[in-house]
Order: sequence, then structure tokens, then C-alpha cells
Amino acid sequence: MEVTRRSFMRGLGVTGGAGLAYGAMSTLGLAPAAAAGPRRFQPPAMADLIDRVDGSPTVVVLGGGPAGLCATYELQKAGYSVTILEARQRPGGRVWSIHGGDEETDLNGETQKCTFSDGHFYNIGATRIPQSHITMDYCRELGVELQTFGNQNANTFVNYKSDTPLNRQSVSYRAAKADTYGYMSELLQKAASRGALDDVLTPDDKDALSEFLSGFGDLSDDGRYIGSSRRGYGSEPGAGLNFGDATEPFGMSEVIRSGIGRNFSFEFGYDQAMLMFSPVGGMDRIYYAFADAIGSDHIVYGAEVTALKNTSGGATVEYVKDGSAESISADYVICTIPPALVTRLDNNLPADVLLALRAAKATPSGKLGIEYSRRWWETDERIYGGASNTDMDISQIMFPYDHYNSDRGVVVAYYNTGKRHQAFESLTHKQRLAKAVAEGSMIHGEKYTKDISSSFSGSWRRTKYSESAWVSWAGAGDSHGGVATAEYEKLLDPVERIYFAGDHLSNAIAWQHGAFTSARDVVTAIHERVTAS
Amino acid sequence: MEVTRRSFMRGLGVTGGAGLAYGAMSTLGLAPAAAAGPRRFQPPAMADLIDRVDGSPTVVVLGGGPAGLCATYELQKAGYSVTILEARQRPGGRVWSIHGGDEETDLNGETQKCTFSDGHFYNIGATRIPQSHITMDYCRELGVELQTFGNQNANTFVNYKSDTPLNRQSVSYRAAKADTYGYMSELLQKAASRGALDDVLTPDDKDALSEFLSGFGDLSDDGRYIGSSRRGYGSEPGAGLNFGDATEPFGMSEVIRSGIGRNFSFEFGYDQAMLMFSPVGGMDRIYYAFADAIGSDHIVYGAEVTALKNTSGGATVEYVKDGSAESISADYVICTIPPALVTRLDNNLPADVLLALRAAKATPSGKLGIEYSRRWWETDERIYGGASNTDMDISQIMFPYDHYNSDRGVVVAYYNTGKRHQAFESLTHKQRLAKAVAEGSMIHGEKYTKDISSSFSGSWRRTKYSESAWVSWAGAGDSHGGVATAEYEKLLDPVERIYFAGDHLSNAIAWQHGAFTSARDVVTAIHERVTAS
Repeated sequence: MEVTRRSFMRGLGVTGGAGLAYGAMSTLGLAPAAAAGPRRFQPPAMADLIDRVDGSPTVVVLGGGPAGLCATYELQKAGYSVTILEARQRPGGRVWSIHGGDEETDLNGETQKCTFSDGHFYNIGATRIPQSHITMDYCRELGVELQTFGNQNANTFVNYKSDTPLNRQSVSYRAAKADTYGYMSELLQKAASRGALDDVLTPDDKDALSEFLSGFGDLSDDGRYIGSSRRGYGSEPGAGLNFGDATEPFGMSEVIRSGIGRNFSFEFGYDQAMLMFSPVGGMDRIYYAFADAIGSDHIVYGAEVTALKNTSGGATVEYVKDGSAESISADYVICTIPPALVTRLDNNLPADVLLALRAAKATPSGKLGIEYSRRWWETDERIYGGASNTDMDISQIMFPYDHYNSDRGVVVAYYNTGKRHQAFESLTHKQRLAKAVAEGSMIHGEKYTKDISSSFSGSWRRTKYSESAWVSWAGAGDSHGGVATAEYEKLLDPVERIYFAGDHLSNAIAWQHGAFTSARDVVTAIHERVTAS
Repeated sequence: MEVTRRSFMRGLGVTGGAGLAYGAMSTLGLAPAAAAGPRRFQPPAMADLIDRVDGSPTVVVLGGGPAGLCATYELQKAGYSVTILEARQRPGGRVWSIHGGDEETDLNGETQKCTFSDGHFYNIGATRIPQSHITMDYCRELGVELQTFGNQNANTFVNYKSDTPLNRQSVSYRAAKADTYGYMSELLQKAASRGALDDVLTPDDKDALSEFLSGFGDLSDDGRYIGSSRRGYGSEPGAGLNFGDATEPFGMSEVIRSGIGRNFSFEFGYDQAMLMFSPVGGMDRIYYAFADAIGSDHIVYGAEVTALKNTSGGATVEYVKDGSAESISADYVICTIPPALVTRLDNNLPADVLLALRAAKATPSGKLGIEYSRRWWETDERIYGGASNTDMDISQIMFPYDHYNSDRGVVVAYYNTGKRHQAFESLTHKQRLAKAVAEGSMIHGEKYTKDISSSFSGSWRRTKYSESAWVSWAGAGDSHGGVATAEYEKLLDPVERIYFAGDHLSNAIAWQHGAFTSARDVVTAIHERVTAS
């Protein structure tokens, strides 16, 4: 199996496959590192089909998630006649916001009914949008109101196991950063002043570096880190002679060995750096907006696809709805069904395509949301959004980014992947909740166990019609993109009249942007084929 | 003049003057660096006055800004009869959100009328709230809806003068951080591996440090920084074989010498670290909510105070309203008028108090807001909130934190202090706009000069009834608090029946939290005096 590893992860230079480059920045003399926009996409237009095609070309789209809805929406702009078959009773697929009233039976056989209060929810799938993703553009185009998603917070905690006095201590991000950056600056300052880097630093470099480190680390005049107001206070400074109770820094060795800085780089990530966004009311708002724009007569909910076959000059899909077997044919089919599930359909796909579909491996991941009847994280810990991080199985606790200062809210008690998630997925909901609360209370104390009014959990490998949070490609590691295996490349081409789309065929796996760009590529390919014919 | 410099700026340990410590964290076994809450404040209660006082004690409050409104609101809880005299026709004082329809004549003699579109505004005074400040608690108590304020953004730019190729180049924060942290990590890694720090690092420390630096700097396997996806892309990665156009890192020496990292530590600051907040619709919403709670019959707008005198067993205030001289007497007066302006009143304050009031020096600062009829920062540069920073006079450009993805928005074209602001304050508005646009277009290109629909500027030293953005205390440097000069301490005590309050008498100068804590201290002092009598 050939694996083409692209160099983009390390920015070794401009890689191939560029096509239309987004060049607005360079015309302004801005540095090339300025924020990138998405590539230009030309939606199909009515005028393209005039005098070229008799009637409206027909397309059946399998799956009403981001890829399927996006493809349909774009094809409709040119007058294609599109029908979406969606097995669930809602749009959005793995973009699922859990609201009160939601009911789901998982593949463990357990049924949960959500009883969250009106207006409260959590996103059990996609929850945040980077500014560069075209998801932002669809929100604009569809009129979906955005708000900031708190992806980092100085006031949340880290809590890790170590062989230092910081073992299983909850340390605020602000204190962890102040101490880590302080000692890091002190050490580099010391090394440079000792001449240890004179072969790589000029005297001018050293002066400039010293000035930077002094501010970056909040160093004393003699170049030492001896604590900082950045750490926070034991009690808040106020008026008059209340200067607040300053806090002592942790020792250098314990800061380094405890690894309290291990998660700092998360927030530098290309797709995780603040500011991040999410629709007001839940990520699902995007898909209800797509569905509204597409029109309810073009979406068949509760349609469970059973067969997918190329025919002469088209393709046919069989499905079951309300217990009845149905069939639909079209000029083209866009299949956004998760790859492993496609292989189970009655189909006439070639053997190498089926092998390629099987190379997409299901990632275990899921979340559990707890509605608390008291926003203790705000009133007691001054935490308004963001996440606490740990090396326990829960991995992180995400605080709500809405309803600030109100009387209740939904905390995501875990969002984890891999083995840490597998520790939860076979448990009953009650067991999951007990484990999540036990671990969470190690970080946030006894209050974590109180004022719980309801909860709801989901595990994507145990969720019908998905069976995966997202995929990784066999042989490509845990990459979320940037790696093209032979199987991945195979599925970029249509099989006669059947096209595959979804985030799994993108360099933004697990992101809505990946699904949208894949859908746009397929729309472009179909439209070129139609207008060339 | 005695200057007591408190050690809190460097966190040398627990300082004096603590009083009631906020101890909820320690009972949970959390590290002392956990986020601090405010001190406990016990509002005066009706029951406190029963059988102790005949009738309602009377208080006149001079100034309807944060300190005056807060003091009134808290005193009313116990049934004090309070009257606020406010010179302006609105509450909030230096917390002023500029909306369409606002009209103001400044001390330069120029009148501006704001024509921003409905719902659009900018905060020309206080604009952001840290999670730890009691401002958050007043928002909860008063039902003021909060949203995230984007105080940092990976997609905004830095643009500085230097003798490197980065001179006056706009570099995204994400690229500046990736390169700075990358080289910083490479250098420290190198120094440690050479043994240059063996006297301070154990072998275990070195191993842990190396692991941290590898992730923090996104280093290659051989410990070098050779670029990173964290920098961003020339064109965005998408589906299929579109891996995006990676970007080249800048050179190590130019990264260090250009100082593109000089502002990173801003976002670690105790009172500037994300997540930060602001009320939906403008910071002024807090003060309209206070005014509503207080009741319009307790606030006299348009009342320009002319005299302030202690009398036998009370105090008397003279003021002019609608051209008529008026007088009001009360048991106590709380004076929140800016200190320099108090000295101009007809008064019988002692000479040392007048000297103390004069030691509060006015800080020059102000902003200019431009309404654009196109959100080019979002569509063209993928910037949704946050600020670009520069060493030009404008200092920074702040992008709106509301109305995302809509068709227009108000950009703060400068927010600066000291000499950089003085370069604007004597100009006409038209001249200010021209200079701001000229500098801003150096950062964001020609589009910065287009689609401008209206603008409004203000300079706090030239703003009637304020004449200062905030104060610094003579002999205390530019500190925003943490320093008690003799004059500062002098004003913490009442002069017979007259009490002083405001952020200038706090360790959070220029923050609403400072005004509130000062007001609470005065409320507590008056209430103790009343109930002890």
C-alpha cells in the first residue's frame, strides 16, 4: 500500500495540488503568513445548464449530514433535481446538538431520553468552528447567528498525575502558564547570557531575545522568575489597601517534571486557536437552516438505504421507510454514508472500492453532558467557558459557552477519544455518569457531585447510522488529514454514476469544513460532467 | 512623600491588608493558584437600621458612574434615602457606549454627532470584563446578558518597525507565535542538550523539558523548528488532494530582532487573559440596569455640581440644573467626581486633602470608531474579533465582537494612551480619522480606506466632566494599582461627612471592578458609622 505523506504538517514549503491559490493577501504586501481564506468555489448556476441539458439532471444524495446537505444546496442553485435520503428523523448526521426531548437507542441497546431544560443543550458532535473554515461562510449565507466558542480559558484547570508535589493537583491554566513561561524564559536567558548559544545568536539577537524573555516570562531585573500577578490571587485585589493575596510560584523542577504545560500547544493549533465560534443555540442550527433552504419536499427522513447500484446511465437506490421497501433512480448518486456502512449495502461496487471503503477505521469518541441546576463553575470558580484538562479517562471537562450567569447549564463531563473513550463506551449511561463524576470531582471538588438535574451521553461507535466519530485511514496513523493513502485516493474518483463525499475524503477529517469541501468537489465534478455532455 | 510599593506585582508572597480571604478553593484541596474569587461583601440590610436609626439616613452621591451607581444601589438595600447628582444626561460616566444619535461637544469645542446604524456601537470607555471582577457579579444580579469579548485572536496581525525584512510587514499572530515559540524551544532545547544548564536542571528535568519543548515549539525529531501548520496556510486545505499551501517560517534572527512577539504577554495578564466578557449591546447596559434598579426619582441628570461643603452634622452640595442654582443637604456625601475636578468646586476641604486630590494625574487615552458598510476583516481576512497591534500611534485596531457575518460593523481604529494618544487628542475629528485610516491601511491594506460610512472619536482628557481616561498617582509610575502613595491613602479616609470613591482609589484603576470595590468600601464604612451611632 502506497502512502503519500504530504509535508504540510511541518510547513516544509509549498506542497503540490494547489490549484487556485487564494491570493488576496499578497496583493496587499502582507506577509505570506497572513490568515488564509478558503479556495474559491464556483457554485453551479442555472445559466450553465441552458442549451446543454434537457430538463433537470437528477441526483440522489445518501445522507443528510453536512456533506449531503451542502451538495444538495449547491446543486439546487443550478436547478438540479435532488432528493436526500436520510435515515434519521433530523438533519445534521454527526452534528447533533442534544436538547430536551431527544430520545435515542444506542447499539448497546440502551434508550436515553434527554430532559435538559428549555434552551439548554450540548453538541455531542461538532462543537466549534475555526475562523478559516468555510463553515463560517455557510453560516453567513444561511443567516445562522454565531457566537464565540470558549476554546481556552486562563481560569480552567489542568490536573495530571506526576511524581511531583503537583500530582493530581488542580492548577489554573493562568498559573501553569505563568510558571512554565517564567522558568522557560529564565532558563533560556541564563543559557544565552552564559554564551551557550553564541554560535547561533549574534549579540544583537541576544539583546533582542533578552528583552523579549523579560516580558514573556515576567522576569525580575536580574533575570529570575520569582512569581507573577499573572498566576492569579488567593483573594482578589480591590479598593483601598486591599492589594489581594498574591500566590507563590511552584518550584522550577516540579513545573517541568509535572508537565503542567503539556496542553498549552493545543491552543496554537491551526484549527483550534482562538477565536473559535459556534452557532447560537447549537451547531445543529446550521443543518436546520440548510434543510429549510433545500425544502422539505427534497428530504426524505426515516429512509434507511439498503441497496446502491450503478445501472445503465444512472444509479438506483433502494431504501426502507416506515416498513415499506422503496426505490429511487437518478442520473447520479452522491453517497455520504460512513464508508464502513456502505460496504454492508446490497451493491455492485468493484472489489477494490469495497476494500478502499473498509480501510477507513472507526475512531471511538463521545461525550456526556450534565445539566447542573447551579452554575458553580461561574459563581465558585470564576470559570465562564473553556475546558479543564486531565490525563484521567474523561480527558477534559467543557464548560458551557452560553447562558452565562443564569441559574443552570450543561457541562460536557467528558470528550475523549481512543482508549480513554473506550473506557466509557460499553458502560450503561448510569455507569458512565458515575465514572465521569468521580473523575471530575478529583478536579473540581465535591460540588461536581451535587446539583445534577439530568444527563445524557453518546458514544459514536455505538450510534446507529454512524458507528464512528470520524475515521482514520489504515496506514495513515491518527491523522485528521494531510495524508493520502491509496484507498483514500481511490474513493476520490466516482464509480460510474456514484460519487463519494464526506469529511473522511478531506484534509479536515472530523471537521464540518472537510465535509463541505468534499461536497463542493463532488458538486464541481458532477456539474463539469453534466455540462460537458 | 512616602511610597509603599506592594510586592504583588511580582508575587513575592502574601501581602498585608488581607482581611477576609476567599478560602473556598483551599477547602477542596485545590492548588493555591486556582482562580480567585472576589472578597465577600455584606450589603447593608434593612434589619441593620431597625431600632438604631430614626428614619432613613440620607446620602447624596456625586456622579452617576460605576462607583456612584453601585454605592447608591447597595445603600438602597438597607433603605437609605439616596440622591445621585449626575452632570450628564445619561448614567455610566466613563463607561460610555457610542450609539447612533449620540451627540457630544468636546473641550476642543468640536461637536460630533454619531450616525452609526441601529444596533451598532463601540465602547469608548470600558469595553471588557475579566472573569474574576465583581463586574461579572453585578451583571448576574442585574440581569445584564453577557457575551465573550475577543481579547486576542490568532488571525489578527502585528505590524512593527524593525531593521529586519519584517519591517512594517503584517504578520498574523498565529504565524508570529509559531515562529517565536518554535525558535525559543529550539534554542532552549539546544542549550540544555549542550549541558549549559546542568547546574540547574537534573537529567529528569532535562528529559521532561525536552518533551515539553518538542510539542510547545512543534519541533522536528532532531529538535529543530522548520515551520508548522500552526502558522496558517497560503490557501486553506480542503478535500481530496488539496493539502493547502503551507507557508515558510521566517528566519530565526529576524523573528527575534523584529520583536514580533513583544505583545504576546498581554494575553497572560491577570486582567487581560481570555476568556473576557462584555454585555450584549454595549458596556453601558450595566449602568442603565443600575439606573433602572435605583429608580429615576433618585437620579438627577443634568446636575452640574458647583459646591461641596461639610456642615454641622452633614454636608451640603450646590449644583446647577437647567440654568437654576439648586442645593441639597444630606447626612453623608459620596463624591465620585474625578479628583482634579473636585478641587475646582467651591469647597471647605482641608488643604492636605486638596493636595492629595491634585496628586491624581490625568491619563490621556481615547478611541475612534469607524462604521464600515462591509465586514472586510471577516470576508477577506478571516478575522472575527480581537485586535491587530502596532507601534504606530494608533497602537491597535479592535474588531467588533458582535454582529458577526452581518453587512456592517464598527471597528475601533485606535485605542491608545500616553504620547501615542496625545498625537490625536488636539486634532479635529476629521484629522484624527485621516491619520487613523492612513496608519490602519499600513496594516490591513487599501480596503481599510474604503466602505467607511461614518465615524466618531473621543479623547478623555478633552471630555467634559471627565478630563481623564483614568488617573495615575504622582510618584507611583503608570501603575494601574498595587501602589499606595501618601495621597492615595489620605483619600481613603472621609473628610467629616464627605467620602471619596472611584476606581482611582482602588488597585484596579481604569477597571469597573476598581470603582465597585471602592464604592462597596465606602458603603461599608458609612453603614458601620450609621449603625454604631
